[in-house]
Amino acid sequence: MFAPLQNDTFLRACLRQATPHTPIWLMRQAGRYLPEYRDTRAKAGSFMGLATNVDYATEVTLQPLERYPLDAAILFSDILTVPDAMGLGLSFALGEGPKFAKNVRDEAAVAELAVPDMNKLRYVFDAVTSIRKALNGRVPLIGFSGSPWTLACYMVEGAGSDDYRHVKTLMYSRPDLMHRILEINADAVALYLNTQIEAGAQAVMIFDSWGGVLADGMFQQFSLAYTRRVLSQLKRNQDGAVVPRIVFTKGGGLWLSEMSALDCDVLGVDWTVNLAHARTLVGGEVGGMGKALQGNLDPNSLFAPPEALCAEARRVLDSFGTPHTDASTSGPTHIFNLGHGISQFTPPEHVSALVDTVHQHSKLLRKSAS
Amino acid sequence: MFAPLQNDTFLRACLRQATPHTPIWLMRQAGRYLPEYRDTRAKAGSFMGLATNVDYATEVTLQPLERYPLDAAILFSDILTVPDAMGLGLSFALGEGPKFAKNVRDEAAVAELAVPDMNKLRYVFDAVTSIRKALNGRVPLIGFSGSPWTLACYMVEGAGSDDYRHVKTLMYSRPDLMHRILEINADAVALYLNTQIEAGAQAVMIFDSWGGVLADGMFQQFSLAYTRRVLSQLKRNQDGAVVPRIVFTKGGGLWLSEMSALDCDVLGVDWTVNLAHARTLVGGEVGGMGKALQGNLDPNSLFAPPEALCAEARRVLDSFGTPHTDASTSGPTHIFNLGHGISQFTPPEHVSALVDTVHQHSKLLRKSAS
Repeated sequence: MFAPLQNDTFLRACLRQATPHTPIWLMRQAGRYLPEYRDTRAKAGSFMGLATNVDYATEVTLQPLERYPLDAAILFSDILTVPDAMGLGLSFALGEGPKFAKNVRDEAAVAELAVPDMNKLRYVFDAVTSIRKALNGRVPLIGFSGSPWTLACYMVEGAGSDDYRHVKTLMYSRPDLMHRILEINADAVALYLNTQIEAGAQAVMIFDSWGGVLADGMFQQFSLAYTRRVLSQLKRNQDGAVVPRIVFTKGGGLWLSEMSALDCDVLGVDWTVNLAHARTLVGGEVGGMGKALQGNLDPNSLFAPPEALCAEARRVLDSFGTPHTDASTSGPTHIFNLGHGISQFTPPEHVSALVDTVHQHSKLLRKSAS
Repeated sequence: MFAPLQNDTFLRACLRQATPHTPIWLMRQAGRYLPEYRDTRAKAGSFMGLATNVDYATEVTLQPLERYPLDAAILFSDILTVPDAMGLGLSFALGEGPKFAKNVRDEAAVAELAVPDMNKLRYVFDAVTSIRKALNGRVPLIGFSGSPWTLACYMVEGAGSDDYRHVKTLMYSRPDLMHRILEINADAVALYLNTQIEAGAQAVMIFDSWGGVLADGMFQQFSLAYTRRVLSQLKRNQDGAVVPRIVFTKGGGLWLSEMSALDCDVLGVDWTVNLAHARTLVGGEVGGMGKALQGNLDPNSLFAPPEALCAEARRVLDSFGTPHTDASTSGPTHIFNLGHGISQFTPPEHVSALVDTVHQHSKLLRKSAS
């Protein structure tokens, strides 16, 4: 059905296998910093108009790959499609963040929640298949979803928040309702990701964008436990290939050891994390178990002149150190990424310098080690 | 000049000395959640009108102490008084955060910066003396400042920010300019805190509110190094008493070990930190060196009904465990606080329940251990 994969460095690195260079992709790589994205967005009329149109979604997903030799593509969509399909009414006002028409703050609203009919998300799965075909085996395609907790934040707040007052009030006051929301979210996310896998996604990523706002103890109960519930339901293989799972908790660096017990292949980390330390904690030994690490350049370093940016990228690569190079066994690996989505203000030519530096310097790292 | 201190639990806990209960105070305890604060604020006309008037500043500082048996008072002021005195023009629009009339983003603007004349901050020092007198020895008075990095964030951004784009662009592009700003800030903050100490502050706290937005490696260079520079210049004693120093980096939990080398007495931690783990890392041994820990209840837990709130407060106390109880030597101690300023939406009666619970439960912890 799909063309054979030509560049498997990303998938191999996810599975802690040796690669000739460190693969790189960027969160939100198909985004507003690209003029061609802004053109397509203008044609589509709105963000949801873009995300729900299979041709547009395919077009923008491939745009960054036309410019840069990135090692993976990621489905163009939003983390909030699932609660939208639950009937909460997602919209994006121009220049603002996401907003829901309805919020979920009381027993009655929680009672109405259910795992949505996946037909309401058909546009996502159609986009996955369309993108996978358009990629024609160039690089693998990553599918994704928000984590149960992150979806719950938006569902309870009704929009983005800077203090998470409503969702935390519910969590501290009515943990029973919070757990009910999270159970439904977890089952919905699992079904959503499995359907993306069946449609052609070759890896899946769970964005726990707001896990880091939780108190220690609460994170484990209200975020990690439901990420685990999602993972326990995910398909492990599709068409004979393993489908790697990536979990990224922004601000979750303090909980890496606990996250290492998750049934996933890769842990994403933000720029506050020291990669050498993370590798020691969770990267595993040669031949043993462990997690690949994904990250963790500060997206703001892309505003610096290319020379300073590339020095910073090399610092990130060096801080992970030489990845595993023995093709006969598995070992610690690194997937280069930002610690958060790329900013809309990023100069596109800086991304070019970044991708080239990561490829070149990571080859040097391997040479100097051999 | 000042009345003798009646309740020294806070100061003793700062110095890792045994106390009969765990002292508690709350960041932003004199604030908008109190109706009497809102009344004084209305009389003053503006936030800066309030902060620059000695009588009003004294009045609002004492308001929470009239309601609750808190163990410390903190000067009512703002972290941005120092850059205001540098001539940047601080203002607070109603319902918005702080804003500067001028920002510091280029060589010319940096060249104009200098340690400000402390006479421009006379209103702060007068408030310190006035509050100390009004306290009449009831509890100790904490003075404070923003950290050099946190001040720089506002000075470069010109206001609050959600992406720190301008300040990080400057840091990554022109580290030389950034270091120059931070040197000036550090020397200004040290002078500012020393003058607060001379005016009557019995402990000082450095709020590194935005240290946690820095990448690992950058935090050490651009925040921690300048906090160290401040500390190296601070007075150790005043009127025969040791003046404890508290350093709080919001989001700095990953760097606690590195922060333990600071020449300060207390490390503040936010709610993402596990207090048992932090105690192991930096709390020190009985009779040995170490830091007292301050924190770390999630301010959002104050929105829960008192029963749930108090359970959460007990969980925080239990997670630190029994503090040091031997009066003959020093050992690990805990100062209860939130992990961030109290929200303006907090019901005042919940604070009452919190303070009582901390006092009662922390006495029980000591009893059960003896």
